[in-house]
Amino acid sequence: MSLKDIYLTKSSKNYAGLENNKNSRYEIIGVPFDSSTSYKPGTRFGPDAIRQAASGLESNSYFSDIYLEDIGIIDEGDVGIVIGDINETLNRITGVISDVIQENKIPIMIGGEHTITYGSMRAFKKQGITPCLIVIDAHYDLRDEYLGLKNGHASVMRRSLELLGGTKINYIGVRAYSKEEKNYALSKNNINTIKPSDIYKVGLINAINSVKKFLVDCKHIYLSIDMDGFDPSYAPGVGNPEPGGITNIEGLTIINQIVDERLVGADVVEVSPPYDQGGITSSLAAKLINEIIMKNYISLSKKNS
Amino acid sequence: MSLKDIYLTKSSKNYAGLENNKNSRYEIIGVPFDSSTSYKPGTRFGPDAIRQAASGLESNSYFSDIYLEDIGIIDEGDVGIVIGDINETLNRITGVISDVIQENKIPIMIGGEHTITYGSMRAFKKQGITPCLIVIDAHYDLRDEYLGLKNGHASVMRRSLELLGGTKINYIGVRAYSKEEKNYALSKNNINTIKPSDIYKVGLINAINSVKKFLVDCKHIYLSIDMDGFDPSYAPGVGNPEPGGITNIEGLTIINQIVDERLVGADVVEVSPPYDQGGITSSLAAKLINEIIMKNYISLSKKNS
Amino acid sequence: MSLKDIYLTKSSKNYAGLENNKNSRYEIIGVPFDSSTSYKPGTRFGPDAIRQAASGLESNSYFSDIYLEDIGIIDEGDVGIVIGDINETLNRITGVISDVIQENKIPIMIGGEHTITYGSMRAFKKQGITPCLIVIDAHYDLRDEYLGLKNGHASVMRRSLELLGGTKINYIGVRAYSKEEKNYALSKNNINTIKPSDIYKVGLINAINSVKKFLVDCKHIYLSIDMDGFDPSYAPGVGNPEPGGITNIEGLTIINQIVDERLVGADVVEVSPPYDQGGITSSLAAKLINEIIMKNYISLSKKNS
Amino acid sequence: MSLKDIYLTKSSKNYAGLENNKNSRYEIIGVPFDSSTSYKPGTRFGPDAIRQAASGLESNSYFSDIYLEDIGIIDEGDVGIVIGDINETLNRITGVISDVIQENKIPIMIGGEHTITYGSMRAFKKQGITPCLIVIDAHYDLRDEYLGLKNGHASVMRRSLELLGGTKINYIGVRAYSKEEKNYALSKNNINTIKPSDIYKVGLINAINSVKKFLVDCKHIYLSIDMDGFDPSYAPGVGNPEPGGITNIEGLTIINQIVDERLVGADVVEVSPPYDQGGITSSLAAKLINEIIMKNYISLSKKNS
Amino acid sequence: MSLKDIYLTKSSKNYAGLENNKNSRYEIIGVPFDSSTSYKPGTRFGPDAIRQAASGLESNSYFSDIYLEDIGIIDEGDVGIVIGDINETLNRITGVISDVIQENKIPIMIGGEHTITYGSMRAFKKQGITPCLIVIDAHYDLRDEYLGLKNGHASVMRRSLELLGGTKINYIGVRAYSKEEKNYALSKNNINTIKPSDIYKVGLINAINSVKKFLVDCKHIYLSIDMDGFDPSYAPGVGNPEPGGITNIEGLTIINQIVDERLVGADVVEVSPPYDQGGITSSLAAKLINEIIMKNYISLSKKNS
Amino acid sequence: MSLKDIYLTKSSKNYAGLENNKNSRYEIIGVPFDSSTSYKPGTRFGPDAIRQAASGLESNSYFSDIYLEDIGIIDEGDVGIVIGDINETLNRITGVISDVIQENKIPIMIGGEHTITYGSMRAFKKQGITPCLIVIDAHYDLRDEYLGLKNGHASVMRRSLELLGGTKINYIGVRAYSKEEKNYALSKNNINTIKPSDIYKVGLINAINSVKKFLVDCKHIYLSIDMDGFDPSYAPGVGNPEPGGITNIEGLTIINQIVDERLVGADVVEVSPPYDQGGITSSLAAKLINEIIMKNYISLSKKNS
Ligand SMILES: [Mn+2]
Ligand SMILES: [Mn+2]
Ligand SMILES: [Mn+2]
Ligand SMILES: [Mn+2]
Ligand SMILES: [Mn+2]
Ligand SMILES: [Mn+2]
Ligand SMILES: [Mn+2]
Ligand SMILES: [Mn+2]
Ligand SMILES: [Mn+2]
Ligand SMILES: [Mn+2]
Ligand SMILES: [Mn+2]
Ligand SMILES: [Mn+2]
Repeated sequence: MSLKDIYLTKSSKNYAGLENNKNSRYEIIGVPFDSSTSYKPGTRFGPDAIRQAASGLESNSYFSDIYLEDIGIIDEGDVGIVIGDINETLNRITGVISDVIQENKIPIMIGGEHTITYGSMRAFKKQGITPCLIVIDAHYDLRDEYLGLKNGHASVMRRSLELLGGTKINYIGVRAYSKEEKNYALSKNNINTIKPSDIYKVGLINAINSVKKFLVDCKHIYLSIDMDGFDPSYAPGVGNPEPGGITNIEGLTIINQIVDERLVGADVVEVSPPYDQGGITSSLAAKLINEIIMKNYISLSKKNS
Repeated sequence: MSLKDIYLTKSSKNYAGLENNKNSRYEIIGVPFDSSTSYKPGTRFGPDAIRQAASGLESNSYFSDIYLEDIGIIDEGDVGIVIGDINETLNRITGVISDVIQENKIPIMIGGEHTITYGSMRAFKKQGITPCLIVIDAHYDLRDEYLGLKNGHASVMRRSLELLGGTKINYIGVRAYSKEEKNYALSKNNINTIKPSDIYKVGLINAINSVKKFLVDCKHIYLSIDMDGFDPSYAPGVGNPEPGGITNIEGLTIINQIVDERLVGADVVEVSPPYDQGGITSSLAAKLINEIIMKNYISLSKKNS
Repeated sequence: MSLKDIYLTKSSKNYAGLENNKNSRYEIIGVPFDSSTSYKPGTRFGPDAIRQAASGLESNSYFSDIYLEDIGIIDEGDVGIVIGDINETLNRITGVISDVIQENKIPIMIGGEHTITYGSMRAFKKQGITPCLIVIDAHYDLRDEYLGLKNGHASVMRRSLELLGGTKINYIGVRAYSKEEKNYALSKNNINTIKPSDIYKVGLINAINSVKKFLVDCKHIYLSIDMDGFDPSYAPGVGNPEPGGITNIEGLTIINQIVDERLVGADVVEVSPPYDQGGITSSLAAKLINEIIMKNYISLSKKNS
Repeated sequence: MSLKDIYLTKSSKNYAGLENNKNSRYEIIGVPFDSSTSYKPGTRFGPDAIRQAASGLESNSYFSDIYLEDIGIIDEGDVGIVIGDINETLNRITGVISDVIQENKIPIMIGGEHTITYGSMRAFKKQGITPCLIVIDAHYDLRDEYLGLKNGHASVMRRSLELLGGTKINYIGVRAYSKEEKNYALSKNNINTIKPSDIYKVGLINAINSVKKFLVDCKHIYLSIDMDGFDPSYAPGVGNPEPGGITNIEGLTIINQIVDERLVGADVVEVSPPYDQGGITSSLAAKLINEIIMKNYISLSKKNS
Repeated sequence: MSLKDIYLTKSSKNYAGLENNKNSRYEIIGVPFDSSTSYKPGTRFGPDAIRQAASGLESNSYFSDIYLEDIGIIDEGDVGIVIGDINETLNRITGVISDVIQENKIPIMIGGEHTITYGSMRAFKKQGITPCLIVIDAHYDLRDEYLGLKNGHASVMRRSLELLGGTKINYIGVRAYSKEEKNYALSKNNINTIKPSDIYKVGLINAINSVKKFLVDCKHIYLSIDMDGFDPSYAPGVGNPEPGGITNIEGLTIINQIVDERLVGADVVEVSPPYDQGGITSSLAAKLINEIIMKNYISLSKKNS
Repeated sequence: MSLKDIYLTKSSKNYAGLENNKNSRYEIIGVPFDSSTSYKPGTRFGPDAIRQAASGLESNSYFSDIYLEDIGIIDEGDVGIVIGDINETLNRITGVISDVIQENKIPIMIGGEHTITYGSMRAFKKQGITPCLIVIDAHYDLRDEYLGLKNGHASVMRRSLELLGGTKINYIGVRAYSKEEKNYALSKNNINTIKPSDIYKVGLINAINSVKKFLVDCKHIYLSIDMDGFDPSYAPGVGNPEPGGITNIEGLTIINQIVDERLVGADVVEVSPPYDQGGITSSLAAKLINEIIMKNYISLSKKNS
């Protein structure tokens, strides 16, 4: 064995600095796309920032006696996006995620802007899976269009719902919306909303239970986390910080309570490193991913035992 | 109509990106002055940062079914300040705010350093109005002078109280002071102080009620928000971050509870964009302004109906 | 006259802080578009940064006894771009610039990414004008496509040449290119290239004279300045700094020598404020614009006298 | 007296801008060392940032009617560290702190990386003092080695425990660890851990009481604060932000409750100014130091009266 | 000798990290004042940035076999300025500099904004010295007033000339001015101007010789360097970068050629650290100061030998 | 072939975004080590910044009709350094570089601080090669020790000369040194120095010729580029910017003239991304590497044909 093999570190830029573990079910896929971002671009630097932040975290779970390196991950690198062309980029995402699903793996997509979730939704649809959605976000993203754009981040959930028919969607953290969006959300039975003020009023555990109840009959669940669902004090590094979001511990607890063996995929989006002093948004994003993986792993292990 | 009329966007730098609505009662006035700032200058960039942050927010209220664009605003631009000359700058503020009051409008001043509040106070005095004051701040700003300066931000409330005679002032968030200021505040009947620890001890609602009671017989109310009244986690972008302030939701709830039809004016000061990573301080400032306007509008509508 | 009229400064965000002068021939038009930027986004903040930088410059010319405020400008504000949609954005640019041309004014477009020049080219074509082009750039931008994009900044001159048929184009500052671009440029008679090393070898005056000679029979001239044509020491705030460009004084001298009464329009693009410490790139961009306007004004005055 | 004596300010860079008071027991000692920092260097700038932040704070205590300037401090400046040589640097720290102890003063060390605490521990050992430790930290720092380094920040408490034999150590804020560290900590009777989730579960006062009880028979106490023990929203400016830490008010309350007359020294480490937007981490660090000094002073006064 | 004496470094924040040498003739005096700065504040951080930058430089001269540490300096710290009050600040500067002159020392003032030079001028006048001035600047600073301010940086040389009667002033680097200033400068026999374009046209040595000739009958010389006299590529960290200035080597050569035994004082102003990426402006400022001191020392030594 | 194979981009973080070409002779090896950096740490981020900057450059040579992608590179990733332990890190560098030499490849090391060059020197020595050195640097790095450190960046050439016996070393760009270093350099026949002022005096071509002559009898040449050899206007992103260095075009021309078939290895060090606004230092570093590779390739091709 040469000294190059010993001393050169090939894995240093992998998620959490972990060597890929081919047996792991969890595939990290970066999508550094932000061309439709309306105000402050920068989420294209999100995937690498989250990978690095993950290296700075210890690998323990806050909730169980388990460590990420015992499970392992596969970091597939980034989708080769087409700058300025959301449609082609979405096509590539759909292609890649479809492959992941066919391999019976669980895709964990790291953005990039929220729009990319739609590419993932299409892959599930294509593979015959219609998951229910849990969305942590300050916004509904239910506009029919925004600044003339049908396929932008402000419309991603509108498009996804159209695609997935009557699937259920449970929002957590929503507090900012247009009149149109609010009315749309109120008029639909398949949309449930937990505002931060609801958590304050009924308590975190009751709020979580209402989500569980709403989704009780779902066969598959997909989790999409727009980091602006968190309060700006915990996640300053986003394009549109909106006061009054959930705390980091609330978010982590929600993950730990809601993720189970039904999870088929997840994404964490809208981390904008140029606005993320100290990297605290990236670091929360990484911690969320770690807990998603560890909780799903435990759930699957229990189910299979 | 020419294509220039269609495609050129004249209003893009207005508050919240809204076209001026001449029928609105709310006049936004920037004062980009920071010459007496003792440590970290930068609040001169506050007005534009708050305008931009407002464009990133949705226009809904957190507390009522109302939207800012249904009310409208008039963004008057900035007072032409004189750098290094606080006296002339205060004269200009007084002149401009007097005009606004005479037009029967409500001035919402965005700073700039806290000193500018004194210019507004003089305008009210000149127009025969002696408002009670609600001040959100980490500090009393009651020094008789500071570093040889009589008219600096550390003395703005001392000067204002001298001007307005026995008017009442209710502080919220104060936690940092000199011995002199504390003794001065304790010795005066017309000064009431709600510390963050008081909110913690008695609860937010009780704290708000004590403010309401203290100001119950006031005919007019002026609200002055120094962003350092908030905890640095919610408002890092200020000159003097002081640990242990109020949260963003506490601040917004206070606004929603205390603003009523007696409000004659308001200011939001001390946002320092160079120290405001992710723009979360600007964005909280803008949200506070939105809720001030929406609550006063509702109160006036109820009174008039 | 009210004090608001006296003290509120409406023009503070206009180019160079100048009030619009309706009699001026020079129309400043911002295009804050950067969605197809391949590596470091940020030129969307270029227009405002250049406006502000212009306020920091004195108004004298370096070459003649003339002052910008004696000529005046009209700052039309920004084209309302569609984020992520280069085609619709180009349509709007074409519409706006067409209007300007019809008013017999000279458009000075400030970017934004280089792609926007194509919108301007189409407006001239539409109005029956086929200008020769002078392009200051480190790159040819002559790729047939780049990363799957036909209408991106790397192809803007290829598309423009296709549009304008056999028009002449004179590059200054080019030093970085693909094999394809170099061969394309070499194969065309209507393309002339002055590299920085040519200026070094033959001297600035001889280099300028060769440009003049190449363009001697052009009826109309359009000047497009990609700030990366300058050396990174003079223009660090660009997306792709390429060592070995022209100096600021060389660029200003070129402007002063080459701009004459045939100029029908100009643009200055690719200023990226997030990467422009001290604002020196913005400030050079503003100075270039000032000298373009002042030299064209002198040339027109001479011709008309 | 010359005008130079009057107008030149020699103390402006001292801690809190205070002139040294030779009668004070509190000696501020900076250690700008960060050579073993694994990811984001920058704590070498910590000492000066904390000194400056202290100048921005008012001098009152949040808990008692006392002011820092009535007690005074001695700012001894910085230990002359040897970059890249942790062993020699530790030797110098040990030398300096030994001197301080012999003068019967209380050293307050400001870092710099956490490793420097070991230099201080050796000084106490040398002077015949074996303090119990209270450590606020997100991490145990109990690794036997890390990246081949025995004397790095990840091992500082392991080395200190080895040095001080069976002394007690009470952690507050720990939430991130390797399997090895967790097992080590669980296996030792002299290690007590208060996680943030414990504070949440039992309440702050009960948590504090359990610390008091654990340390009840300690004769001397040394307090070491790694700023990453705080939640990243309160302390973003650290090398490894780990979600879910204690709040600033919890930290200050803990200080106020736990510091008593047994305190023999303290340190505040891991402030990394390049990652500390708005300086809120420095400013919390300074506030913690102020309250440590004021509470110890009160405790000693009571004991001596 | 205690270990504290050995290991604690008291001088680490002195200019160039040098211990004060009481026998040196050169007194460094910081003036962290920027209250009248019109656009981008920040020069208040200049003095410390220059001190630190000096520590990063080697101590050799570029022109002679001499080293700064063989001469030594006295760093007196900073004048205690009054924020927002230029008149009182100027009084203090005048007081301090008068003391320095009376001690027969040479003051080297580091700014801070250019306005502070006037305080120094008054001190010389008061001590019966009327020096000729050499001013490196992009601007004349000869406005009668600017934005209503008589004593601002844009008027500092106008005020100084009024104070010093018919003294001679030689500008180097001027290229940006109002019509009023240009006409004023042209109308006066005691004002000589070397523009950057003059250096280009006649060569550096000839340009320097014309300065020498103009000042040949001056008994005393004071040198004032506004860093914006340099090209923005060499000095980006200034409030108003103006393209086309002198190079760092030109500036250093000018210093080396023009400074002689007649020098009675100097200042280096307008370094603005927040805009000075990489600290290259500070570092040039420090190098200029080093060469000023070393050249004057050599000149005096020759004269005295 | 799966869509993952098509759309996932594994090579995006390789040098210049190029896939490794196993037939290439050029091996890029990063060494992200900066633990002995005395003032401003940050060069540990250099390797990745240079890799990314290389992706932003076109692949053409400025001097010949050749393109980097026709030659190809092998990016080996980074040496796994030991933070704070220069000796072990040097051992690993020596091990890795030895492997590269044995494979008959040419190592291009990217730093990291200058100290790492010593690791490379030991590898050549070990493999029986004693190259002559060409060093571009503002400094001699010939101190016997610095701040107590024998193996720091300030001594790297002293240690290397001791190791390599009487090998020749030719400095280019040196302008800052201690008395000791200057005397050492002057006293040795095997040391030749080209200062920036020499280039100015004799012209670039003559200066280059004197280097060629000095090294004419060398069998092997190693090129070490400390980016602070360049003027700070071209390379602001370094730890110790020293005014008056060489220009980017001078540096590139020197490379093109001096590199020939004798080159056995090279390094480019001291790029400090946190201080490198706009990335212009990284981008110059990458361009230097590209031209080194392309010129050596041409030289070898000629020799072999
Ligand atoms: Mn959102
Ligand atoms: Mn979203
Ligand atoms: Mn305050
Ligand atoms: Mn205040
Ligand atoms: Mn270009
Ligand atoms: Mn271009
Ligand atoms: Mn820690
Ligand atoms: Mn620690
Ligand atoms: Mn100037
Ligand atoms: Mn000046
Ligand atoms: Mn060097
Ligand atoms: Mn070196």
